[in-house]
Amino acid sequence: MKERGYELEHIKTTYPEIQADTINETIVPGLKWLMERCDRPIMIDDSGLFIDALKGFPGVYSAYVFKTIGCDGILRLMDGVKDRSARFECCIGFMRPGGEPSIVKGVSKGSIALAKAGSGGFGYDPVFIPEGHSETFAQMPIPEKNKISHRGRAVEAFLKELPRLLES
Amino acid sequence: MKERGYELEHIKTTYPEIQADTINETIVPGLKWLMERCDRPIMIDDSGLFIDALKGFPGVYSAYVFKTIGCDGILRLMDGVKDRSARFECCIGFMRPGGEPSIVKGVSKGSIALAKAGSGGFGYDPVFIPEGHSETFAQMPIPEKNKISHRGRAVEAFLKELPRLLES
Repeated sequence: MKERGYELEHIKTTYPEIQADTINETIVPGLKWLMERCDRPIMIDDSGLFIDALKGFPGVYSAYVFKTIGCDGILRLMDGVKDRSARFECCIGFMRPGGEPSIVKGVSKGSIALAKAGSGGFGYDPVFIPEGHSETFAQMPIPEKNKISHRGRAVEAFLKELPRLLES
Repeated sequence: MKERGYELEHIKTTYPEIQADTINETIVPGLKWLMERCDRPIMIDDSGLFIDALKGFPGVYSAYVFKTIGCDGILRLMDGVKDRSARFECCIGFMRPGGEPSIVKGVSKGSIALAKAGSGGFGYDPVFIPEGHSETFAQMPIPEKNKISHRGRAVEAFLKELPRLLES
């Protein structure tokens, strides 16, 4: 963010995450909760992997599912499943003191690999092949991944919105 | 509860459930949230299936996991897994206006079946065999299940506590 003229400070804190079906539904109460405790502009982000054949699982609970059954669990659930389409979503929420919560989203469409591949990235990266590519996120150099990743896209969308958000 | 001398009214409402590793952690804020909105004694319950070989998965997110990958997903994840031990937990939370949240827990230990069996019960009942039995919860008559189920045990523990909770 620095090269774009914004200074970002990392606040080491957690906030209560609500159980919900979409990332947006967890981010809005999170922003409000943090705003009551930190009187300054706040940005939070949250991501999830949504697999079509599994009705969106692991979705909003991707972090918990990764901690428990991991990539191997996802591959087991997808064993023999033809429709392997999936998407990563990243939502960035922003709120200013006295302002309203605002959210932008970045999406990266792709499919679930037949086996883990690559050692870069983190989380489900070894089993996610982005659309138009033959390698998983974990096999890509970070700058290349950032160009097409859900988080990279969400950050771009957020930076585009930010001047308006800081003015209004 | 009526035969025990307590009258219970079902309030049709939802409350925000916090993402957490234990059921207790989601119930306490739930009780406080409801107490701010309903000025009377409140009881809520929440249950989960915890599978040892899956690091406690689906745990606190059992309902979401059931909606998405269901019993079939659990069986896939447990395919070929030797350690099939699991437990159902039910927590009942109670709070009075001006009081503190209080929680009792009922546990039913058992194992994950090799295949679904039975059509009674609900949720994961067709894949859960309670300790000392050879049938799944879904194969048992309801009264027999209630005697050994996590929810049955939690209700018993709660009824034992209730006189003290209503006095203090």
